Amino acid sequence: MKILLVGNTGTIGSAVQTLLEERGHVVLGASRTNSERPVDLGDPASIDLAVEQAGQVDAIACAAGRVAYGPIGELTLDNYRDSIANKSLGQIELVLKGLGYVAEGGSFTLITGVLGTHPVRTSSAASTANGAVESFVKAAALEIAPRRINAVSPTLLAESTTKAGHLFPGVEPVTARQVANAYVRSIEGPDTGRIIQLF
Amino acid sequence: MKILLVGNTGTIGSAVQTLLEERGHVVLGASRTNSERPVDLGDPASIDLAVEQAGQVDAIACAAGRVAYGPIGELTLDNYRDSIANKSLGQIELVLKGLGYVAEGGSFTLITGVLGTHPVRTSSAASTANGAVESFVKAAALEIAPRRINAVSPTLLAESTTKAGHLFPGVEPVTARQVANAYVRSIEGPDTGRIIQLF
Repeated sequence: MKILLVGNTGTIGSAVQTLLEERGHVVLGASRTNSERPVDLGDPASIDLAVEQAGQVDAIACAAGRVAYGPIGELTLDNYRDSIANKSLGQIELVLKGLGYVAEGGSFTLITGVLGTHPVRTSSAASTANGAVESFVKAAALEIAPRRINAVSPTLLAESTTKAGHLFPGVEPVTARQVANAYVRSIEGPDTGRIIQLF
Repeated sequence: MKILLVGNTGTIGSAVQTLLEERGHVVLGASRTNSERPVDLGDPASIDLAVEQAGQVDAIACAAGRVAYGPIGELTLDNYRDSIANKSLGQIELVLKGLGYVAEGGSFTLITGVLGTHPVRTSSAASTANGAVESFVKAAALEIAPRRINAVSPTLLAESTTKAGHLFPGVEPVTARQVANAYVRSIEGPDTGRIIQLF
């Protein structure tokens, strides 16, 4: 398959690209630092341009999205607005625009995360953005058939335990490779409207 | 208790006000048409002003929030952005601002809806806004104790079956009075971080 992968340079995204290529797929990467297809999820025009430039594809996947962290008493409404504008609305625009470019039977795979379901302290903006993504995916699936849409929801990444492990006491981390496998399930399998939880 | 109720003139809000007053509470209403406490959830400054004007209260509840409906192919990113700005970010601002005004042991009760969990066709923006509210509530509860926060999630209202019943085949509606009872549970009971589902 030909797959547009937004956020192919991060910890998850690079693992997704590697695994998809191992499985014989052609991956068109897009990211903030990509010179051919620069995408900032907070900039809808950059999303539209990358989708147009990629053209007809079999799948669009996303492993990007920036959110704010902080105690609820220190977060401002702008922190929530910006987190949603990036991780939620950015991914929604990827679907709205992508509907004209993904083949029949093709798929969308978005990224959410455990914090939408099981929050931790300082995660309220991240949780909010994830909740929006998950309900969007469930709703969109009802209307975009024969195209499919799922979201991958990882827990703490093994690669991030040094930085974020203190927020997740007693949580078994997953590797980026395991998360990448969930993208494969979404892209190659029959699921739609599913939040693929790795926790 | 003294309770600030945003959206006290709608189908749900007026039932909530009636039931709370029957139970001996003092309700300070706020709504788009209220001359004393005008609130437009899409206008954060109006929310802040109403909260300040109400002063110290035992609970803040909300039964307002406007969202867009339409086929996913016809909704624009602005429709999603506006729905979130109103129902999600408006209610989040009510909490952020209200934290300085709700008594210890007091509560917040927000409104979400069945579409966040069980979407229908044309609900993708409404579902997205609800998902954001629900994950915010679960996350905020971890940080605002001894204050509490819950969300009420009604299914199709009996009072709305003429207008919206066709979208919910086979769904048992609930009355606004039953929904109001869920507000009482949130305000008078011990729950926090809970989505009180009426479906």
